[in-house]
Amino acid sequence: MCFVLFTPLMWAAHDDLYSTETNAFILTILIALLLGCVGRWIFSGSARNFENMNAKDGLAVVGLAWIVLSGIGALPIFFSGLVPSFTDAFFEAASGFTTTGASILTDIEILPRGIVFWRSMTHWLGGMGIVVLFVALLPSLGYNAYHLYRAEAPGVTAERISPRIKETAKILWEVYLLLSLAETILLMVGGMTFFDAACHTFGTMATGGFSTRNASIAAFSPFIQWVIIVFMCFAGMNFMLHVQVLSGRPLSVLRNEEFRYYAGILVVMIPVFALVLKYVHGLADPVRHAAFQVVSILTTTGFCSTNSDVWPNVLRFGLVMLMFIGGCGGSTGGGMKVSRIVLSFKIALRSIVQGIFPNAVSPVKFNGRMISRELLAGVAAFFILYIFLFFAGTALLLVSEHCDIETALSASIASLSNIGPGLSRVGATQNYAWLSFFGKWVCVVLMLAGRLELYAILALFLPATWKK
Amino acid sequence: MCFVLFTPLMWAAHDDLYSTETNAFILTILIALLLGCVGRWIFSGSARNFENMNAKDGLAVVGLAWIVLSGIGALPIFFSGLVPSFTDAFFEAASGFTTTGASILTDIEILPRGIVFWRSMTHWLGGMGIVVLFVALLPSLGYNAYHLYRAEAPGVTAERISPRIKETAKILWEVYLLLSLAETILLMVGGMTFFDAACHTFGTMATGGFSTRNASIAAFSPFIQWVIIVFMCFAGMNFMLHVQVLSGRPLSVLRNEEFRYYAGILVVMIPVFALVLKYVHGLADPVRHAAFQVVSILTTTGFCSTNSDVWPNVLRFGLVMLMFIGGCGGSTGGGMKVSRIVLSFKIALRSIVQGIFPNAVSPVKFNGRMISRELLAGVAAFFILYIFLFFAGTALLLVSEHCDIETALSASIASLSNIGPGLSRVGATQNYAWLSFFGKWVCVVLMLAGRLELYAILALFLPATWKK
Repeated sequence: MCFVLFTPLMWAAHDDLYSTETNAFILTILIALLLGCVGRWIFSGSARNFENMNAKDGLAVVGLAWIVLSGIGALPIFFSGLVPSFTDAFFEAASGFTTTGASILTDIEILPRGIVFWRSMTHWLGGMGIVVLFVALLPSLGYNAYHLYRAEAPGVTAERISPRIKETAKILWEVYLLLSLAETILLMVGGMTFFDAACHTFGTMATGGFSTRNASIAAFSPFIQWVIIVFMCFAGMNFMLHVQVLSGRPLSVLRNEEFRYYAGILVVMIPVFALVLKYVHGLADPVRHAAFQVVSILTTTGFCSTNSDVWPNVLRFGLVMLMFIGGCGGSTGGGMKVSRIVLSFKIALRSIVQGIFPNAVSPVKFNGRMISRELLAGVAAFFILYIFLFFAGTALLLVSEHCDIETALSASIASLSNIGPGLSRVGATQNYAWLSFFGKWVCVVLMLAGRLELYAILALFLPATWKK
Repeated sequence: MCFVLFTPLMWAAHDDLYSTETNAFILTILIALLLGCVGRWIFSGSARNFENMNAKDGLAVVGLAWIVLSGIGALPIFFSGLVPSFTDAFFEAASGFTTTGASILTDIEILPRGIVFWRSMTHWLGGMGIVVLFVALLPSLGYNAYHLYRAEAPGVTAERISPRIKETAKILWEVYLLLSLAETILLMVGGMTFFDAACHTFGTMATGGFSTRNASIAAFSPFIQWVIIVFMCFAGMNFMLHVQVLSGRPLSVLRNEEFRYYAGILVVMIPVFALVLKYVHGLADPVRHAAFQVVSILTTTGFCSTNSDVWPNVLRFGLVMLMFIGGCGGSTGGGMKVSRIVLSFKIALRSIVQGIFPNAVSPVKFNGRMISRELLAGVAAFFILYIFLFFAGTALLLVSEHCDIETALSASIASLSNIGPGLSRVGATQNYAWLSFFGKWVCVVLMLAGRLELYAILALFLPATWKK
């Protein structure tokens, strides 16, 4: 944490050594160091407990870790005096670490570069998972962090390449670094400065969505937009597939059922969007804008190449439906994940077939394998929980804000699925600055719950978690 | 069918013996008779098939029966020349038989009384279930109609009072008649004419919502409104509970877990709505209006005592959430049913607990009994299917209509849950007349799917249903 904070500090110091901003980073690093020492002192006393950590503790630690990290991440923004309250700073940091990309900042271009770099960097760190980093680091310190990994790994298909978690995490980080490097170079080839290229790479690879411009990606050339489209597609894929491609098995990607549905959704939706944009809305360059927005929303990135909130309602609602789906399991994307949506659809379809033939045995298959009853029940429970949280979030936002139902619905799902922009007053060209204190915390809880696959955060609300 | 058509015919003939309307009913009766003879001739040839009917055939027969009956029910409306197309007439009849109460008629008060009576009567017939009637009649003709009953009985708690289906159906109809009689008398005591009292009783007991006035129940006195509130509450309860009360076991109602949640929702939501209406919206008589609208929407009736579409957004969205819940299993109400929502909630809660304690055995209980894994899986599948249909309906309405998202969302759930009025352009004072041809058929499919608990209608779309 202290180490990663040095990077934005360098930007800040380079721009103005004696600015509030530089001091803000130095102060944060000192506080983080202090907290680190205190934390180590507490943990060293209970190291035995860590070794015997069970799922309950794992969930609680993951949930708390993200809250603490968001809190520390909020400090530079808060100390720099750019936001009116700590709630705003925490919202921005949580939005960063959860790769949501919802912002309470109204004008990004006047901000000091250190802060802009830092908020984009929170995406990148959160994207692949601070906790995956923990998985690679903690075991070397002698901690059994298996349960941390289990709570963190997104999606239902947690295939392991290597039996050793640390090894797996390392390979995934290498792929992540490689793709990030490739994107940064391509964006610089397209004419971006290194600063812009790095920040947008952070936002893309983590499916985050923070930009360095108020107009988001609409401020850049079509070439840059296509580069970002391609890398958003990569970021929304299961990273295990990238590993397989890089290890010389490109065809295994096509055999992956989740990937085929993911690609299928894009192949169907982009032309549909493009046709409606061309013939109903009359937009110039409909294919690029359709591709950009569909990919950006499905992968839960939230970058914009144009103001999609003025599009026909059928497309706006189409984007909302994509928000529920999200990326593939094992990607940096949020949402319910393509695999869960496909399995939910198969569960629904099977229930119709069972209504017709009550005695027929109809197993649900995925990736050629039969899915166990327990896993199906888990997927169904996740679906139900997701919908309940979505409705609860909408209701709470309507209680605290005097906004329209469309805004509340889309803010709720855009937070829960870690997208960022929604519709209407939280639309592509809007932000979350106008939300009340209470409304911002509702969004923060939804973002954290969505990012940690619901359970790690919801478990914190259950009294049973806190019992010995 | 022919017999029940004589009742509105009498009203029509009484008002004007030689009107188009009278002829419309006579023509419909002749067509129904003809279809009945043809039907009997076909069925007599395949009586053996009927005896060996399986779940597949049962589902298909129920689905087709409701479509055919809606078709015949549409004829008087179509022949009377009051609507521009057969689609409109079919919409109105399907909305009646499914107890939805969504209307394509813009001015009800200028309509001939025979037609108004007929559309209210379709509610009453549909309410308790034409198919329950079939269950009482078909067995006496030697048909094994058990599977019909199974597809028809709403909710998950299909407790049987009597082992014989016919006996059960008869008792339920007697209770239904008794309650209807009581309401009609009370409404006449409140100053309604017999015609108005009968029509509104039909709409209440069936949780339908067709009124004889354009202003719905707002046109009547507070006394009448309270009578309707009470009887809507009765109609949204499991009718088995009424049977138990009438057979001298009133306390068993309080032991019923579904009823306690149903009552709990009303006890919590009515004061909340009343308080917001009083202090935020400044409405006179907030308790009555809150009680009326909450009960009307939760029971999926759809009567209005005031224009709830101008209420604060938090209440409008609150009503939409109630739309998903609906009445109790075994009531005439639509929606997902209170029992399914409660079980879904328990499934979601259990999944959080299982995240904390993966090895703990945590059975889901309902009504004091442990619920089997199969039933839980069925409830979860139903939940998923319901949400998918809701989204699909919304998307299709946005494709066919140039309306806002709020209108499409609420029209979709108001049709699927058999309520009638939604928000915005299908709000309390609006109607469905402006929908396109395609949009009306989308709503009809949603209404039928919702009324027949999804499977009977969806099975008709599967090729497997039509195979020998």
